[in-house]
Parts: sequence; structure tokens; C-alpha cells
Amino acid sequence: MTKLEATIASIIPTDRKAAEAAARRQAALTKPAGSLGDLEYLSVRIAGIEGSAAPSAEPGAVFVMAGDHGVCAEGVSAYPADVTKAMVLNFVAGGAAINVLARRAGARVVVTDAGVAGDFDPALPIHHRKIARGTGNFARGPAMSRDQAVRSLETGIEVFEEEFAARPFRIAATGDMGIGNTTASTAMAAVLTGRGVPELVGRGTGVDDAGLARKIAVIEAALALHNPDASDPIGVLAAVGGYEIGALAGVVLAAAARRVPVLIDGYISGAAALLAAALCPLARAYMIGTHVSGDAGHALMLEFLGLKPLLRLGMRLGEGTGAALAMPLCAAACAVLNEMATFESAGVSEKL
Amino acid sequence: MTKLEATIASIIPTDRKAAEAAARRQAALTKPAGSLGDLEYLSVRIAGIEGSAAPSAEPGAVFVMAGDHGVCAEGVSAYPADVTKAMVLNFVAGGAAINVLARRAGARVVVTDAGVAGDFDPALPIHHRKIARGTGNFARGPAMSRDQAVRSLETGIEVFEEEFAARPFRIAATGDMGIGNTTASTAMAAVLTGRGVPELVGRGTGVDDAGLARKIAVIEAALALHNPDASDPIGVLAAVGGYEIGALAGVVLAAAARRVPVLIDGYISGAAALLAAALCPLARAYMIGTHVSGDAGHALMLEFLGLKPLLRLGMRLGEGTGAALAMPLCAAACAVLNEMATFESAGVSEKL
Repeated sequence: MTKLEATIASIIPTDRKAAEAAARRQAALTKPAGSLGDLEYLSVRIAGIEGSAAPSAEPGAVFVMAGDHGVCAEGVSAYPADVTKAMVLNFVAGGAAINVLARRAGARVVVTDAGVAGDFDPALPIHHRKIARGTGNFARGPAMSRDQAVRSLETGIEVFEEEFAARPFRIAATGDMGIGNTTASTAMAAVLTGRGVPELVGRGTGVDDAGLARKIAVIEAALALHNPDASDPIGVLAAVGGYEIGALAGVVLAAAARRVPVLIDGYISGAAALLAAALCPLARAYMIGTHVSGDAGHALMLEFLGLKPLLRLGMRLGEGTGAALAMPLCAAACAVLNEMATFESAGVSEKL
Repeated sequence: MTKLEATIASIIPTDRKAAEAAARRQAALTKPAGSLGDLEYLSVRIAGIEGSAAPSAEPGAVFVMAGDHGVCAEGVSAYPADVTKAMVLNFVAGGAAINVLARRAGARVVVTDAGVAGDFDPALPIHHRKIARGTGNFARGPAMSRDQAVRSLETGIEVFEEEFAARPFRIAATGDMGIGNTTASTAMAAVLTGRGVPELVGRGTGVDDAGLARKIAVIEAALALHNPDASDPIGVLAAVGGYEIGALAGVVLAAAARRVPVLIDGYISGAAALLAAALCPLARAYMIGTHVSGDAGHALMLEFLGLKPLLRLGMRLGEGTGAALAMPLCAAACAVLNEMATFESAGVSEKL
């Protein structure tokens, strides 16, 4: 059995008994039942994921996977491809948005080179797991080989496992960096959800109208060229995916296998979550929706996954920023469950 | 000049130059312009409020104002009135939802008895500012006198000022406790927004269908009885308001006068914000919308105030819980502005 197969095989349903115990406790706390809305639901879900009626969502780890995209040659992005490498260096230096937001959430940022085109000093504190110097241009041929697709998934699993063993965390978040990766994500999402490219596509980091039309045309032509099969998720990843997207799907699977709640960030993480769910439908129960991005189509992905976003702030940055911003909400949900007084303990009258 | 008049007179427009400087810095940070969505807008607003291009939203103080309501005699609430006092004791003991959420946000909870029906041990660490033992039943007569209405507003101003002088904070939040206060809030909101009672009313802490119909009938009859004039906000408060609602409006005015951003919690805080805005339209610029509650009508109040909620979690508890949950978002927005690298400092290429 491969690492990927073993991880998928070890994913079991969440713990209904723990979730029910958490729901019962929520009902006994000094507040009208249900009055904390989605925060109560969130605590119950985390209880089920962790198998504990007194769950915790701290500390956190944000897995930022980076990779480059050959399809950038088709002019689908508003930024030059060298930004991927420069932003990885920015992550290491602590100056990016995800560094700031993860610090606020008390979470660490784990950076992995899954397939950046440029080279990094081996001394840099990142996981050096480059599978290739960027994907192939999927407008002309496959993004990667089937073997590389499996390796990208296993990269995510292995990085998660290494980090978890070295310094355990109680909640994980997905984050991405890769110029051109909204194009790959749209292509993957179109196959995996069955929705049309124009519904799913967005402006990514900010292409103009002409760029958007070009992006749609490139993706539709690529789907016609490869004709990927939704029932073969690894084939979809190989045809039109990205190394960082595969690695993020690996993180999701590893989290589910370890019963760690995993916060799904924005558009690219959404595509990775679709891939993980296609490989293992049970993994969905371990995913937590964080925000719905400003990119059209992200809401459709979340709907397909059955995830309800906690935040609607029109964010469209990636890096794990939406997920990091949702981390304190998860911690707060658990704290309410664990720390509030009950009607009985506080001597407060219940409902008439 | 009274304390109330002096406070209102000292409220000035927010600082456009500081807001513009913050917006310029947002555009220079290592992310596509606007990609952090409402988080960027939030940081720019806080910059304008504080008059600083490098604003801070920490630490925070949550002002929980408590009061009882004579209109409970009409059977408008799902909980007995003694819950107001019991919950104040729960706040002091640290076991309520607001205690947990404020702790998470690094904020203190400031509890004030503005008009609770029961008595408190004077040694309790609350502001003992009882104006009366609950309001009059506004289904039969005025909730309070005009003088008491002014005193409730000034209670909020004075408590804010005392706390600010004793231990300064950078962001304030409103919170309420008072069985029956959604009924008073709906009545006030109907007058101040001009919308109908059925549009604005909600189930509060959980009345059933019959209770909801009774609540609407009671409010509509009271408005016919008092016929409050929207252009006389103090008269509206006196006719159908509550001591804690007046005190919360006072907190909002004091915050605006001190140029401290003030997070507006849920339905009752929304009514208090409407009152503050009616007394001083400039105060609106200092308010920050936090969440939109599960109570119908709250969205209408926010729309009238021009406030965009940060969270939509279906919460309907009050106490300041929605505002406390939004505090970390404000702190995160400021941290992004202050701590992120710029394209220039990080050596990252800008948009093509």
C-alpha cells in the first residue's frame, strides 16, 4: 500500500457521540439554546472531529504550499511568475499577510516548496520538496505526470506528519502561493464539480476583462485537450493541476487521518479540498469552511463540499489568510464550550 | 451645558488624512491591492477614527449595561425577569459567554447596573448606577421620565470616562443584559428608522409564535399610546426605551468624543446606536458594525446606520458577544497595516 493509500484507508467517520455530548453541554450553558448560532455548531463539529466533548483548537499550523505554473506562458496572471519565489522569501522573512495573521492567531507558518521554478538556499527554514521547476503548460500538454501527481499529494501528507511529530498542533490550515494557480484551480474545479468554467472563474490576483476572457478560453481549450475524468482525481491533478494544490490536498487527507480539524482557505485551497474529497469522501467531515472569497466560483466550491464559510470579507489573497483569520473563531467556539457556566452551576433560571 | 451636550459638542469628523495615508500604505503592502477585502477597509476606518495612519485596536473594553423592563409584565419574554440580576452575577463570576469571548480577545468586561430591578452587594466590582428598579411598563405609561432618560445617557458617558481614565483602552464594545429589552429596542428602532414593527421585531431570547404576535401587538399599541417623535431622541428613549439602552448610547457618544472606535454588538446595541446617531449624526463614523444577528430587523438597523457587519453567524445573545468576537478582526486589520512588508522593502515585483 502506498503512503497515499494508507492515509486514505486510515480516515474514519467523525465521533458522533462526542459531538452529541458537546451539543448537550451547549444547551446547558447560561444562554438561550442556539443563541451563539454558528459558533455553537462549530464547537460541536470540532468535538466530533477530535473525538472529545471538550475540544481545543490551539495551537494551529498554517501549511503554505508553493509552486509555479507553466500555464502562465499563456498570459493568465496579472503578476510575473518570479513573484512566487519572492513571496516564499517574504514568508520566511515574516513580512507577508499570512505571517501577520498567523502570529495574531498564535499559529506557526509552515512553508513548503512543492514546485517553485526558482531555487532556494538549502539553509532556508522551509520544506525543500521541489517536485519540478513548475508544472508543464497544461494548454499544451499535461501539467505533470501521474507519478508526480501522487508525489505532490504525498508531499503534503509527509510535511504534515513531520510537523505534527516535531511539534503537535490541534488545528491545521491550508494556504497557497503560486502565480497562475487560480487558472489551475478553476480547471480542476470545473472537472470535479461539473460546473462550467465561466461560473467558476475569477480574476485571481487581478486580471482585467481581456485577461479574464483569455483565462476562460485557455482553461476551456485545456479541458477539451485533456478531457479529464472526474472519477480519476489523480488524473485530473496530473492533467491541469499544480504541485502546491496536490500538496494541499495531501495536508487535508493527513489532517483527516490524524483527526485534526483543517481550515480550508480560499479558491486554491477549495480546489485542493475538492481533490481530497474526491479521493476520500470521508475527509469532508474534517474540513472547516473559513471564508468565501471575492473570486466568483469559490462559493460554488464550498457549496459542493457542503462547507459553510465563517467569514464573508471579500478576501482573495490566498496564503491561508482567510483560514488564519478564522482560527480565533474556532478557538473561541471551543472556549465557550469549555469555560462557560451552566444554568445549574450559575443559579440562573431557565426558560419559562 | 450639560454633560450630554458637552460630549456631543466635542464630537468632530474623523481624520480623512490619516485614513488616506492608511489606504496608501495598504496599496504598497505585498499583496494585490484590495485583496484583503473588508479587512483593508476596516484598517482604513480605524485609522480615520484614531487619527493615526498606524492605528491600534488593543486593548479593548466591553461595556455591558444592565437594566430591567416593566413591559415584561405584558408577557413579551421567554425568560423570567430575575434572569437579568442572575446574569449580572454570572458576569461578575466570569461564567457568561461575554466573559469567555472578551478573555479570548484580551478585553476587559465592564459591568454596569443602570436599572436592574434587584439589588446588588455594593462590594461587587460593577458600576452601581441604578437609575430605577427597572423601567415603567411602557404599555401603560412612559418607560421613564425625560430626566431619567438623560441620566441613562450620561451614565454611559461617565462610566466610559471613568474607565478610560483609570485604564485606557483603544477599542470599545457595547453589550447589554436586560430581560425584555428586545421589545424596547424594537419600539425605539421603529420610531428612529420609520420602519414597521413587524419588519423589525424578532424572537429575542426565544418567544414562540404566540409570544411574537403578542410582542408586536404590545409594541404597536405602545407606539399609538405615546406617539414618540423621531426628531426628539430623548423623548423616544423616555417613552419606550430602557436604562441600559440609554447608557449604551452614552458609551457610543463618549467613544466618538474620545476618538475610540466602538464596536456595535447586536439588536439592543443597534437600537442604542440608532439613538446615538439621532443625537449626533457625526457619531456614526466612529461605529464599527460587528455582526448581523439572527433577529429579523437587525439587518435593517445596520443598513439605516450604514454599518457593514463583519460576521454573519446567526448569533442572537447580546452581552457584547458579537462585538467581542469581532475585536480580534479589528486587531488583525491594524496588524496587517502596521506589520506587513511593502513591495519595495521585500523586493517583490509589482503587478505587470
